[in-house]
Amino acid sequence: MDIPKTPARFDATELATLLDGRWAGVRAKVREALEGTELPPGDHLDTEAHRAQTLEQLHLLVKSGIPEIGFPVAQGGRGDVGGSVVSLEMLAGNLSLMVKSGVQWGLFGGAVQALGTERHHERYLPSIMNLDLPGCFAMTETGHGSDVQHLRTTATYDPATEEFVVHTPHESARKEYIGNAARDGRMAVVFAQLITGGERHGVHALLVPLRDEQGAPMPGVHLSDCGRKAGLNGVDNGRITFDQVRVPRESLLNRYGDVAADGTYSSPIESTGKRFFTMLGTLIRGRISVAGTAGSTAKLALEIALRYATARRQFDRPGTSEETVVLDYLAHQRKLLPALAKSYALHFAQEQLVQTLHDVSVSGDERAQRELESRAAGLKAVTTWHATHTIQTAREACGGAGYLAENQLPQLKADTDVFTTFEGDNTVLLQLVAKGLLTDYKDQFDELGTVGMARFVADQFVGTVIERTAAKSLVQRLIDAARDDEDAVFDRGWQLKLFDERERHVLDGLARRLRRAAGKDADPFAVFNNAQDHVLRAARVHIDRVVLEAFVAGVERCSDPATAQLLERVCDLYVLSTIEEDRGWFLEHERITPRRAKAVTEAVNGLCQGLRPHAVELVEAFGLPRQWLTAPIATGAEHARQDAQRAHDRTLG
Amino acid sequence: MDIPKTPARFDATELATLLDGRWAGVRAKVREALEGTELPPGDHLDTEAHRAQTLEQLHLLVKSGIPEIGFPVAQGGRGDVGGSVVSLEMLAGNLSLMVKSGVQWGLFGGAVQALGTERHHERYLPSIMNLDLPGCFAMTETGHGSDVQHLRTTATYDPATEEFVVHTPHESARKEYIGNAARDGRMAVVFAQLITGGERHGVHALLVPLRDEQGAPMPGVHLSDCGRKAGLNGVDNGRITFDQVRVPRESLLNRYGDVAADGTYSSPIESTGKRFFTMLGTLIRGRISVAGTAGSTAKLALEIALRYATARRQFDRPGTSEETVVLDYLAHQRKLLPALAKSYALHFAQEQLVQTLHDVSVSGDERAQRELESRAAGLKAVTTWHATHTIQTAREACGGAGYLAENQLPQLKADTDVFTTFEGDNTVLLQLVAKGLLTDYKDQFDELGTVGMARFVADQFVGTVIERTAAKSLVQRLIDAARDDEDAVFDRGWQLKLFDERERHVLDGLARRLRRAAGKDADPFAVFNNAQDHVLRAARVHIDRVVLEAFVAGVERCSDPATAQLLERVCDLYVLSTIEEDRGWFLEHERITPRRAKAVTEAVNGLCQGLRPHAVELVEAFGLPRQWLTAPIATGAEHARQDAQRAHDRTLG
Repeated sequence: MDIPKTPARFDATELATLLDGRWAGVRAKVREALEGTELPPGDHLDTEAHRAQTLEQLHLLVKSGIPEIGFPVAQGGRGDVGGSVVSLEMLAGNLSLMVKSGVQWGLFGGAVQALGTERHHERYLPSIMNLDLPGCFAMTETGHGSDVQHLRTTATYDPATEEFVVHTPHESARKEYIGNAARDGRMAVVFAQLITGGERHGVHALLVPLRDEQGAPMPGVHLSDCGRKAGLNGVDNGRITFDQVRVPRESLLNRYGDVAADGTYSSPIESTGKRFFTMLGTLIRGRISVAGTAGSTAKLALEIALRYATARRQFDRPGTSEETVVLDYLAHQRKLLPALAKSYALHFAQEQLVQTLHDVSVSGDERAQRELESRAAGLKAVTTWHATHTIQTAREACGGAGYLAENQLPQLKADTDVFTTFEGDNTVLLQLVAKGLLTDYKDQFDELGTVGMARFVADQFVGTVIERTAAKSLVQRLIDAARDDEDAVFDRGWQLKLFDERERHVLDGLARRLRRAAGKDADPFAVFNNAQDHVLRAARVHIDRVVLEAFVAGVERCSDPATAQLLERVCDLYVLSTIEEDRGWFLEHERITPRRAKAVTEAVNGLCQGLRPHAVELVEAFGLPRQWLTAPIATGAEHARQDAQRAHDRTLG
Repeated sequence: MDIPKTPARFDATELATLLDGRWAGVRAKVREALEGTELPPGDHLDTEAHRAQTLEQLHLLVKSGIPEIGFPVAQGGRGDVGGSVVSLEMLAGNLSLMVKSGVQWGLFGGAVQALGTERHHERYLPSIMNLDLPGCFAMTETGHGSDVQHLRTTATYDPATEEFVVHTPHESARKEYIGNAARDGRMAVVFAQLITGGERHGVHALLVPLRDEQGAPMPGVHLSDCGRKAGLNGVDNGRITFDQVRVPRESLLNRYGDVAADGTYSSPIESTGKRFFTMLGTLIRGRISVAGTAGSTAKLALEIALRYATARRQFDRPGTSEETVVLDYLAHQRKLLPALAKSYALHFAQEQLVQTLHDVSVSGDERAQRELESRAAGLKAVTTWHATHTIQTAREACGGAGYLAENQLPQLKADTDVFTTFEGDNTVLLQLVAKGLLTDYKDQFDELGTVGMARFVADQFVGTVIERTAAKSLVQRLIDAARDDEDAVFDRGWQLKLFDERERHVLDGLARRLRRAAGKDADPFAVFNNAQDHVLRAARVHIDRVVLEAFVAGVERCSDPATAQLLERVCDLYVLSTIEEDRGWFLEHERITPRRAKAVTEAVNGLCQGLRPHAVELVEAFGLPRQWLTAPIATGAEHARQDAQRAHDRTLG
């Protein structure tokens, strides 16, 4: 098999510029701001010292001007929604700082901005931005993390005093894992079932003071500490219980639902469900930030592991007097290089997602918003799992050195572990993506009626249509020209077509399967549940296709031929290692022949060997702030040691 | 498809007895000893306090009589090698304690026992057993972790003073990650290149004092601290550098090589390489203990996740007024139940491995010893990866609760993460297994000559032949009666045959591939390296077969019909989920049809649903000491909360 050529040299600046993308300015600003600022992650500190340090670091960020990027110009911000997401993902080397920033400015500030109205913006946003008012985003409850539509905290309107009474009816309803709650938060956006005049209107958000200026809890507010966690111990997660806490009527963040002084409820959106999911949709930025940050942590872990792997040697190399550099082993390449290729793919997909977020935040286009929500859910799941898997692999690839705190991987692993859970459990998110895709098959479920339909398909997205991403015409052109000969595994059209057909086949099959089972008048839970593996697969293959199209579009934007050629090989490795991983499905459904499957494996091996010389340059090009790379094994210690050993061995020699 | 029946009831005592196996007595002794002893894992402590606590706990273990199990009767031990491994794996709830015990009694004490002679036994073993002499096992160096045959520390004999001079020539040669070195160790078994009369005789072990009675370092010994690690912070890992340290001639552990007063070297084994691997072989107990402990931690993680999953509810169940118990979701079952089935399979394989270790330690049979080394290497790799994967999955399955330290999973994850690295890097171990298997194909490499041969096949095992495990005749009988009809996926003979044929096919193919490539007069490194993925696969499928045969033999020992029936289903789930995972290979090599592959997936779903009601009983039957289960989510808190919520919801009507 002829593996397509990898260029010997390419333009690293060209590549870095391409990866920096639309928000290159924000990336440069953060790099510059961090350079002069000491922001150590603090994993060696005890909990209280770590929390104190993280709060201090937030104040340093305020001075840098980074937090204001995403806030409205009217309140002194920059009004750059996309930029705010990109700036957070640049904090990958100190995840307590990133998460606490995300809580303060993304979740708390973001909710006031998205769900509140002018009176809230004017009164609170300035002091949220400058950290005078540290706050919480109190949605999750002990009993309801994924199913937030059914959380149990109540906010009952009392027209006599024109107040809401916020209350926690039982232990399952207390607010749980709330960042900023254990130590620093003075106010919270509290999500609660709104009741007025004896009628329930679904979940709404209110501003509730938690602590006074001296840090003492407000009357009726009970705060406790979630205690030590696997990681992120610089973030003070806590629990909040409300005992008939009264707040003024104006505390309601009333953009999507309001209560008049006499208790009359009004909303621009009639359906309780649609209203709730519209509100949730405006908070999508947090989920996108987590995906972006997860992507960055995988890059950082790969940079550490790849730098070490190009210096570390082990076992004599037969026929030479030297030991073998570990990245020369195929097994080591296979651990790290497909993960690097996937990091590239996800980088371009994330860039596209942030662009959509930014553009939708300006245009307000409802259909684009639905698609954004689906993409955000899917990419968050795929990217956070990628981070978990990649950091684990990097740790193992660094052996015992990877287990030492000084080499950063332990902290990265521990801090990111919850990324697959918070801002939406990954399995639940994939299910949402699949349900959204099934709305395309609405007609097939007609016989089930509206209620039956809702059980199977989107109960929160209006539905996301399977259609081409931004790269529409390019992708279609490549597919139309797809080859199917011996070397087709490297043909982009063939690859795109394979992903495309897999998605359609899985979705068609799922729709048929559900309809068939439902037709039997079976228990609706059982029908959907028995196909749950199929449902999750539908979401995964959909995201695979979206990610690949983003990668293809990204390569297309590259104007330097050698750099583009290099990226084509990285893209090949992403595609072919993805196919290899799922070749069970492709073979089972006779989409590839056994012979072709073996060729894919051979191609992955060849691409790994071809890209190996460029591994470190490829990972450097992501341009993570240099401050975050502190691991001695990745910053020269191993090189120095190998040199000393070889010098000594020669004296014996 | 008809999924074979799972019994409604079975005899839990029968199952527990079967799992306790040959060392039921040791297991009972440890359970009893732990019941009255407080041994909290201490993950909330700072490093110094954690180390101090762990040392204290080791002294408590001494009182329990557990450490003496594996030591010779002559020195007051019980002489029960197998029992000593089993006792360590019972410490899964406090891994700093387990690892520090393993260092002191398994590695340090074990090396003195295995490599020393009577003079060392009499002088040192009693004070090693009672912890008067805390010690280290100083093998790994900064520059050589996997390739320990080439470590660089030297021990040069000086006949003038009848002393060895132990020396660290450069930084790469310092001893690294050595347990007990940073704080408590007073003596070390040091592995070094032995030089006498200017001649090198390969790696040998010597006893070198590290600290005096007051804890001060001995002259020429430089000790430093590896610092904070991802986990196991109760173990004081450190670095040791020797600056021309002199020890008496009698310090050499001289069972396999000795130096006379005049400097003459002698050994019962002529070849330097064979001598070294024979010495390593006697230390196999440590590797087997790690496999056993890894298996236990996976069981503990599964017990936490399964108990929580049977109490936790999320999302309304359509058609009822209740929320769905999360273990009722197929996706949740698929996360946890195949892992539970694999834990069963590995449990039986580990039991068999410990038996072989024990019996070989009595018989001294060399061929059995080689097979033991291969099995130990393979099972250590497979079981530690299983633990890493399962604990990760359990953490995610418990959502945010799984991220809280109080729920144990963070500590389990952090502590076990290095298991895939220490006592042999998993990738390196699998390669050793494969090389051992290739010695069966010796003839095919004849043209390469002895040197060429050595590059491809066992350079350390004499070779392990592919042959049936203990269950020989039973397995052969089942294979002979293998069916191949519609429902064959549940036929044990068909399953065994599939695993068997896969192993032979992969190995045959590998041997052919290597010979073909080698024939071209190519770079021997490149030949082997280009096939490295194939090499690792050969080892994996070999271990899969060994594990399955152990499981089948285990079920055969069960006399209660209902319990046996239940185990048959667990075994089906292990086999079929393994096939499903590797169905790419089976399809690619036309060992199963696409139709059969789909049937396998359907069978896995059906088995998950069938076993779901017994999940908690199945994991309880492993009989881990109850002291280790402290997670509130697994010990009633979630049940209580759900009850309170439902009671409250009912009052709302």
